[in-house]
Order: sequence, then C-alpha cells, then structure tokens
Amino acid sequence: MLNTAKIFLFLALFVTLEAASQQSIFGGQDIQSPEIGLNNTVIFRILAPEAKEVKLSGDWMPAQGWTPGTEAMTKNENGVWTYTTSPLLPELYSYFFIVDGIRTPDLNNPFLIRDVASVTNIFLIEDAQSGLYKVKKVPHGTVRRSWYDAPSLGMQRRITIYTPPGYEESNEKYPVLYLLHGAGGDEEAWISLGRTAQIMDNLIALGKAKPMIVVMPNGNVIQDAAPGEGSDGFYKPQFMVAKTMDGTYEAGFSEIITYVETHFRAESKKSSRAIAGLSMGGFHAMHISRYYPDTFDYIGLFSAAILPAQGAQSKVYEAIDATLMKQKELGFKLYWIGMGKTDFLYQSGVDFRKKLDSMSFPYSYYESEGGHIWKNWRNYLSDFVPLLF
Amino acid sequence: MLNTAKIFLFLALFVTLEAASQQSIFGGQDIQSPEIGLNNTVIFRILAPEAKEVKLSGDWMPAQGWTPGTEAMTKNENGVWTYTTSPLLPELYSYFFIVDGIRTPDLNNPFLIRDVASVTNIFLIEDAQSGLYKVKKVPHGTVRRSWYDAPSLGMQRRITIYTPPGYEESNEKYPVLYLLHGAGGDEEAWISLGRTAQIMDNLIALGKAKPMIVVMPNGNVIQDAAPGEGSDGFYKPQFMVAKTMDGTYEAGFSEIITYVETHFRAESKKSSRAIAGLSMGGFHAMHISRYYPDTFDYIGLFSAAILPAQGAQSKVYEAIDATLMKQKELGFKLYWIGMGKTDFLYQSGVDFRKKLDSMSFPYSYYESEGGHIWKNWRNYLSDFVPLLF
Repeated sequence: MLNTAKIFLFLALFVTLEAASQQSIFGGQDIQSPEIGLNNTVIFRILAPEAKEVKLSGDWMPAQGWTPGTEAMTKNENGVWTYTTSPLLPELYSYFFIVDGIRTPDLNNPFLIRDVASVTNIFLIEDAQSGLYKVKKVPHGTVRRSWYDAPSLGMQRRITIYTPPGYEESNEKYPVLYLLHGAGGDEEAWISLGRTAQIMDNLIALGKAKPMIVVMPNGNVIQDAAPGEGSDGFYKPQFMVAKTMDGTYEAGFSEIITYVETHFRAESKKSSRAIAGLSMGGFHAMHISRYYPDTFDYIGLFSAAILPAQGAQSKVYEAIDATLMKQKELGFKLYWIGMGKTDFLYQSGVDFRKKLDSMSFPYSYYESEGGHIWKNWRNYLSDFVPLLF
Repeated sequence: MLNTAKIFLFLALFVTLEAASQQSIFGGQDIQSPEIGLNNTVIFRILAPEAKEVKLSGDWMPAQGWTPGTEAMTKNENGVWTYTTSPLLPELYSYFFIVDGIRTPDLNNPFLIRDVASVTNIFLIEDAQSGLYKVKKVPHGTVRRSWYDAPSLGMQRRITIYTPPGYEESNEKYPVLYLLHGAGGDEEAWISLGRTAQIMDNLIALGKAKPMIVVMPNGNVIQDAAPGEGSDGFYKPQFMVAKTMDGTYEAGFSEIITYVETHFRAESKKSSRAIAGLSMGGFHAMHISRYYPDTFDYIGLFSAAILPAQGAQSKVYEAIDATLMKQKELGFKLYWIGMGKTDFLYQSGVDFRKKLDSMSFPYSYYESEGGHIWKNWRNYLSDFVPLLF
C-alpha cells in the first residue's frame, strides 16, 4: 500500500516542479501581452533586456505598399519594452514584434494564425460586427476535416466542412455554401483566418442566417491537403503554387459537389447551392458557376481576380462571354460582388462590372474601404451569408 | 469589354507584386530551415546579422532538470546563423531559437504546436515508428470538433472525435477509445501533439488496429473548450487549472459516453469500450474505469498520476481499493500501464503496481526509456491501440 509520506512527496513534486518550470517550459514570460484597455487602447509588452531596438508591427498600422507598418517600442528599467496604441476600432487584429531586426511572435500570446508561410499573433476587440468572430455561448456547429475521393486528380483530398447546430440531431436536409480560398490559402484558410465557424454560429443564433452546410475545399490541385496536413509533409508554403488557375480545379469541381451530396444531408438542387470565394477563390467561383451554369443560385465574388492568364488552355476558359450569357438566361437569385476601394484588383473589378453591364447581367455590388485583406473578407462573408437560401 | 493591355497589367500586378512581397509578408526569410540530410543530421538556419548570440534548443538535447538544453549557433559572413546536429534518431522533434536571450520560433518553418502556452516548431525524421506520425497515402479518417451537452456542468463543451476511414460509407457500428489528455492539455492535445489521427490512419492501413472511433474530450471542467476555442476567448493558458482532479470530470463522464453512443454508430457495450490517458488523463482513466466498473474492457494508463490529492472530497475518490477489487471481479480484457524510467511519476507507478499486485489485480506493464514526454505517449498509444477490440 502507498504510505502517506510518499503520497505527499509525489503531490509536492507534481505541483511545485511543474509550477516552477511553467514559465520556462510552458508559458513564455511572466507578463501580460496584449492587454486591451477599457477604451480599446492596447498595450503590448515583451521582456527583452538585451535588445537594442524593438518594434511592433500590427495590421491596423498604415502599410507602405506591401511592407507592413511598424512602431518603435520603449524599454523600461526592468527590460520590458512597451507600446500603447491609440483607441483601436473593434476588429480581429494580427501583429508581431521585431527584435533587433528579427521578426518574432509575442511569446505571451499563444494564439497564432498562419497566412501562407507567415505566422502572426491575433487579438480581438469586440463590437456587433467583430463580435461575430468570437466563440459565444450559443449553439455551435461541427467542423470536420474529411478526405474526399477526387478521381480526376488521382488522390484523396482533405476538405473542411461546417455543419450547423442541430445537424446531428435532425433528419432534415440543408442548403450548402461552397466557400473558396485565395492564392496561398488552403482548406484551413476560411476557418482560421476567416473565422467562418464563429460567423456561422453567431449569424444563425441571431436569426440572421439559415442553418446551412459550409464546404471549404482545397483549391490547389497539386496538394492533397494544406501544407503540413498532407502527404507532402512539412515544407515551406508558397504564395503561388502550380496549376491553381489552369482550369483543373474548376473542371473537377463536380467531384466535390457529388461527395457533399452523397455524404451529407444536403439539398441537391440549384436553389440550395451557393458558391463564393476570395481573390483567386472569387475567380474560381466565377468560372465554376459559369462552367456549371444551372447549378448555383447564389454566387459571391469577394475581391475577386476575374480573367484567366493569357494563353490558359483549359476548356473551362473557352467562351466566357457566351457561358455568362447562358448563366444569365438560366437565371440565379444573387450575384454578389464585393471589392475594397484600395484593392490592387479594383480596376479589374471595374472592367468586369462593365462587361456584366454590357450584357445586362444582374449583380449586387458592395464597395468597402480598404484593400485585399481578411478584414474585408470576414465582413463580406458576414454580409453575404444572410442573403442566402 | 476588357482590353488585352489591361489584362496583362492586372496579371503582371498580381504575380510580380505578390511574388516580390512574398518574403516580407508571407514567407519569413529566403533560407531553408530545418534541412534534414540523408544521414539524419539536421541543419538549422536563421538570418540575424545584428544578433550577438543565437542558440538552438531542441527536445533531443539533454535537459537540465526542467530547463531545455541549448547549443550555440555559428554566424557566417552573410549574417546567417547555423547549427548542424549529429545524426538524430527518427522521431517527431520540436525546437526553437534564442536570439540574444529572446525565445523565437523558426520563421522559415510555419509548422508549430502549442503545449500549454508554449509554441514550438516541429519536424519529423521517419522510420517505422515515427512514420506512424506522418500523413501517408492511405485512407484517412475524419477529425471533427463538435460540441456536446454537459448538463452536469451547465454548458456545451467542445470535443474532438476521430472516425475511421470508411465510417461515412458504412452502416456498421464501431468500438470506441476514449483518449484523455494531461494537465495543461485540452481536446486539441492528442490530435496536435499526439498525432492521433495519423497514428490511427496508419495502424489501420497496416492492418495492425481495428477501425475504431477515438474520442478526445476536454478534461478541464471549468473550460467549455481549449484556450482560444471557447467562450473565454483568448487568454494565457495555465498548466494547472482549477477543478481538474476534484472528481467533477470523472463523475460526469457518463454524459460523454451518452453523447458518443447517441450521435455516432458506436457499439454500446463493455467489450467495445476502451479508455486511456496520459499523466492527469491516466489518473482520470484509472478513476473513471473504477467508478464505472462494468463499462470498459480496455484501460490504458500512460505515465499516469494515480492518487487524488489529500482531502479530495469527491464521492469518486471514496473506497478506491474496494472499487478496484470490484473492477477486478467484474473483469476486463486489458489493464495496460506504461511508464518511462526517468519519469518524475516513476515511484508512484511502482507503488501503484505494488498495490495492484497485493490485490492480484491483473495488468500489463511496459517500461520505456525517458520521462514525462510526448515521445513516450505517442509510442504508448501506438503500442496500446493494436491490443484493442
């Protein structure tokens, strides 16, 4: 039998050794960062007594073209560098530190998101809109990563699927939104950077969106899964990968629809199908909805690239105008276009809308501030989803 | 209509601007790290021309008690610091850099895992055992994050569930392994640090494990979900949280079983139920299997804590010896205990086995090298799962 002294020794070991080591092994530094104040000023801190220069880069700072903005941090007598923002507007923000020229995340904030090969910390300041990105005490849907069969690509491929609260307990069929990522993204992008599960849970709880299935496939046909999640193992993700805009994905998209409609209680009809995407995913949504002309009643193009590269050979990109005209004739309920005023694709959007106007092709247009950024895509999704089904 | 010059301009913009900015925005630095050589030496690199001292810390280095080992890196004329290991044994490893005293991940490797509040990079050197941790071209199961109702805790709680390949296409019922995390862990731990989905996919593909459902609940009853995934929002995770070893979790565990057996095609019988856990999760598995004495035919204790804190008041911790005796009398097929030779819980395991011996309580015992580390828990899981069902 165990004797009492040994039990005490064990408990003492378990608690004190672990607690003492928590900082070095499990917890980073014993300071709080970020700290969000009542008036939405945010204080960032990093303990770096030996550093000569520490900067903070946050996505709320004005960028110089593609170079993120930075602000100098100030060192106190304890070696802690601090920066306090002006009051920030409610939003999901990302940031990182630069310590003597080396980019480093905030050790005191383990919440990180990957965008292509770049990892940044996140924090949230809440209002009615950004509160949609938060996990609230509302009924939650299920997020699953499954693998579907893609015979046209000769592989099983990973796919992220959100089913709404109540799906497991009901026998009813649900409409489906196919939600496509941009260049450098994958089947993780809309869930992690896009906060899709939280947006859907909250919009459904507010009665603003119908319960629906959201399907987030991987649009990079050379991958079976996101970097690090597939058979290619761990490698450095690239922004542009091969064969993303050559028609292969669009031509095989019916395999994804078939998988969803045979494996989920999904309504199999045009009025219950929507497709939307951001940037390259908007390009895919435009071409897929045109190439399968009687399949989707709801189409969303978020900061979309539009036209294929000169010389793209795929059958998918033949007769664009004629198939758009066909899509118009067959009819649909919503063709929603969102674009930011400073987006580098802004002019291509102007040109595309001119084309649509010349064809009397009906669409809704929403123009936001800002550019080619996740803030806009989360907003567009939150605006688009209540219009569906 | 779009004119050709504009199309070219757009494409040029899209490709060149993005490609040029890839390094600063999306990709870290333009160097490779880590680089795994043919003989399993590994080269680490970080561009830090201004740094005075850069060290590498990897979990293959001998630790000083709870302080991870480090090795000095060497700077070349381009400002790149390098360290080359001796040939490493195949394993899933984790590491980080220390630049002038500041811990920072490897910017050129976006694959990170969180352990409590600490984030480290990972890489894999493959052999037959560690190859189980890799995504291979084999049929894959589905991993879902769902929310179950826990009336005893007054909340909906997040739970991670693996269903095996073929689950969606069949009508058969499957046995269930309940797999419990340790202190500081949550419903993400076994999937991210434990590589459970890969281990299950690969063991099933090799014919070494039966297809089964693996249920990974959250054992911290004050949380509805892992840090960052629940209604508490983003906060700094702690190693020891309140009420993890006070009996609440064990007493309410039937809610999890009920959820699984009503929402999945799960066999509802003792011979189709297994429960295992690491450290605190081994403690939970021991007490749950004893408290619900005729429920589990397979029990696994991995580096388990055993006895409750002195003075723990829960009914769960009353009459431990009598209920163990009852469990023995009712019978089970496997009581598997795994422990590392240098584990700080080693002696408590010795004492527990003495107690079992004194009761003629049957068990299997496996003693490995090493201590209280994920390497052992991945190994134990790989050894335990083939013995089930």
